[in-house]
Amino acid sequence: MPAPATASAPLLQASQPEALDAIQADALFNASLWVNIALAGFAILLFVYMGRNIKSQRAQLIWVATLLVPLVSLSSYVGLASGLTVSFIQMPAGHPLAGEAVLTPWGRYLTWTLSTPMILLALGLLADTDLATLFTVITMDIAMCVTGLAAALITSSYALRWVFFGISSAFFVAVLYVLLVEWPDDAAAAGTSDIFGTLKLLTVVLWLGYPLFWAVGTSGIALLSPAITSWGYSALDIVAKYVFAYLLLSWVADNEGTVANAGVTLGGGTEGTAAVDD
Amino acid sequence: MPAPATASAPLLQASQPEALDAIQADALFNASLWVNIALAGFAILLFVYMGRNIKSQRAQLIWVATLLVPLVSLSSYVGLASGLTVSFIQMPAGHPLAGEAVLTPWGRYLTWTLSTPMILLALGLLADTDLATLFTVITMDIAMCVTGLAAALITSSYALRWVFFGISSAFFVAVLYVLLVEWPDDAAAAGTSDIFGTLKLLTVVLWLGYPLFWAVGTSGIALLSPAITSWGYSALDIVAKYVFAYLLLSWVADNEGTVANAGVTLGGGTEGTAAVDD
Amino acid sequence: MPAPATASAPLLQASQPEALDAIQADALFNASLWVNIALAGFAILLFVYMGRNIKSQRAQLIWVATLLVPLVSLSSYVGLASGLTVSFIQMPAGHPLAGEAVLTPWGRYLTWTLSTPMILLALGLLADTDLATLFTVITMDIAMCVTGLAAALITSSYALRWVFFGISSAFFVAVLYVLLVEWPDDAAAAGTSDIFGTLKLLTVVLWLGYPLFWAVGTSGIALLSPAITSWGYSALDIVAKYVFAYLLLSWVADNEGTVANAGVTLGGGTEGTAAVDD
Repeated sequence: MPAPATASAPLLQASQPEALDAIQADALFNASLWVNIALAGFAILLFVYMGRNIKSQRAQLIWVATLLVPLVSLSSYVGLASGLTVSFIQMPAGHPLAGEAVLTPWGRYLTWTLSTPMILLALGLLADTDLATLFTVITMDIAMCVTGLAAALITSSYALRWVFFGISSAFFVAVLYVLLVEWPDDAAAAGTSDIFGTLKLLTVVLWLGYPLFWAVGTSGIALLSPAITSWGYSALDIVAKYVFAYLLLSWVADNEGTVANAGVTLGGGTEGTAAVDD
Repeated sequence: MPAPATASAPLLQASQPEALDAIQADALFNASLWVNIALAGFAILLFVYMGRNIKSQRAQLIWVATLLVPLVSLSSYVGLASGLTVSFIQMPAGHPLAGEAVLTPWGRYLTWTLSTPMILLALGLLADTDLATLFTVITMDIAMCVTGLAAALITSSYALRWVFFGISSAFFVAVLYVLLVEWPDDAAAAGTSDIFGTLKLLTVVLWLGYPLFWAVGTSGIALLSPAITSWGYSALDIVAKYVFAYLLLSWVADNEGTVANAGVTLGGGTEGTAAVDD
Repeated sequence: MPAPATASAPLLQASQPEALDAIQADALFNASLWVNIALAGFAILLFVYMGRNIKSQRAQLIWVATLLVPLVSLSSYVGLASGLTVSFIQMPAGHPLAGEAVLTPWGRYLTWTLSTPMILLALGLLADTDLATLFTVITMDIAMCVTGLAAALITSSYALRWVFFGISSAFFVAVLYVLLVEWPDDAAAAGTSDIFGTLKLLTVVLWLGYPLFWAVGTSGIALLSPAITSWGYSALDIVAKYVFAYLLLSWVADNEGTVANAGVTLGGGTEGTAAVDD
């Protein structure tokens, strides 16, 4: 689609109404956003209900971190659907759409910096990991999202878009290392291997899909249209966020004792146990 | 080298000198900012003096969190008074000022994401709450501020401004729940019920004023002028931030022993006590 | 009031290709960025190798915080070198370059909010400080960086640029106080005085250089060209970040036992010791 009338397409303000028009003119793109708003809203209500009887501090922390995932997601998708966090990004020379202003929902990357740490916090508490490993995985994850945002926003050089893609992927490798190598042992020690194994597999497989859609979508080699790219991310979000959270919360609700008695992360299981008596 | 010529009013840069001119042309608006700069500056000096004898770790943490409130506030108001974080926001169709560029001090919402968590951290430590509840209230508070910022920045749709207002208000309900239901019990157990009750009431009543001014001010149905809207927020800030902080710090300075002996949040009262001997 | 029609250079998007052209046209400026990309990359590989045998939780936390310094730095410098986080800032009346659009690498200030807390976290863990002091120094440091960013971005008033410079410097005094007065005693108690003394001196002396370069560089009185200003920051970064981190990690790798047995910050040395057995 052609660049809007302005000589530039700055973030947040100038192109908002134009972005909204473009989104609403593309029913498939628009649907990829509103489906997630509806599902996130439903997930929030369901998760609040599922967590109504959780008492121990550790289980409550897992529950709140997990509940924040659809809460951030809902806010993020309303931001996208309003055009607030979607901009026309003028692609640099070398990009398949060079010179065109491509509708880019950059708000996704921004809000992933808030939602993905919550997923990892919940998983880390489930595995009863130590503070140093939790700090590592969350800082690497935030760095992955911020450099992914940078990759999507660069308009000056096609090569430097891929340099940032590479940097972001390197941070992702650090996250994968913790998920695949460090935490399975912690989870075994905490007696949460079964559910951790399921959620680890789901997270690793689905999270690999995000850089894939970046690479073959409009930000990368542009094999996919903006609407299909957006659906790719939206479909991944549905499983990696809402289905993931549902599985985790179901298990926590049924196994609160196991969670409450662990306690490496928060410094001693006695706290967790004591908090049950509150 | 010459700046590129564009027609747009993006955040931060383009409209800064124009925003400053508009602020300085409106003496009432300008006064609403400089009064807070003066009061925040005075509060900082007073609070540093009041905290000079605080020794225990828990009391020191409350003191620093409280001191950060006027520190962030001073920085925020200088940002507003310089036009750095004030922009002309073009209101969408349906808004009473549709099509007009309304002078919007959006920096307020941005800096509230930094100052309000400090207020809640200080209150939570005073009530000696547990880590899970503190995490809940602070994440919900930050989500409230960020979605409030989004509500103020949307220029594409009047309805979606109110959708974000609703989302922000829902996060506020979670904050209110902790303040009104969870923490009074914690404070009773910690022996800080009297001062907590006063500060809770002050916080709940005043914080309700912020969405009210959003709704009837220029961002919402625009019953109030930009200057009166800004005075509304500024007056609330004076009581909810500086008076609040003064009451809290006076009490902590006089009752350091009570604070130091609590310790659920930081994992055991022995630490707090030990720190007194430093 | 009508939206202003301005000639502007907004952040992030509009001026990116122009910024990249300007950077690449100034070989000295460009070199100041790429030298740091190369050194940060080398530092990352070296530090990963140096940390391969670290086992205890406290030592691992210091190692990850230190490793994040070149990781953030690499990302930051790629952002600068691509023009993503460099803009033409139109200087206000009173500034020596008033009316000119000065190439300003504002991304430096933004990424310092992420990298400098990691330096202080590593130093604080090395000194085995308490949580309240660590919270103080990190919040003051972030406030210093954010208000420094504001100082660099103000285009409406020369005086208010210096007001923000003064606010940022005041936050810096709080950081210096902790480094020079509080932590040396903590480090003595933890048995880390020698290495802490060296790193404290290096940090204090070099960090004083940053406001100096702001003041005499293009953002301040503009005695230095953009390229020389950028080299000033880049040279400081090389010593304050990579050399600093190398000294710290060498010591930690050789003295892991001393680090593991401390434990005020994380609540009890037993955790650290226990983690060694993992």
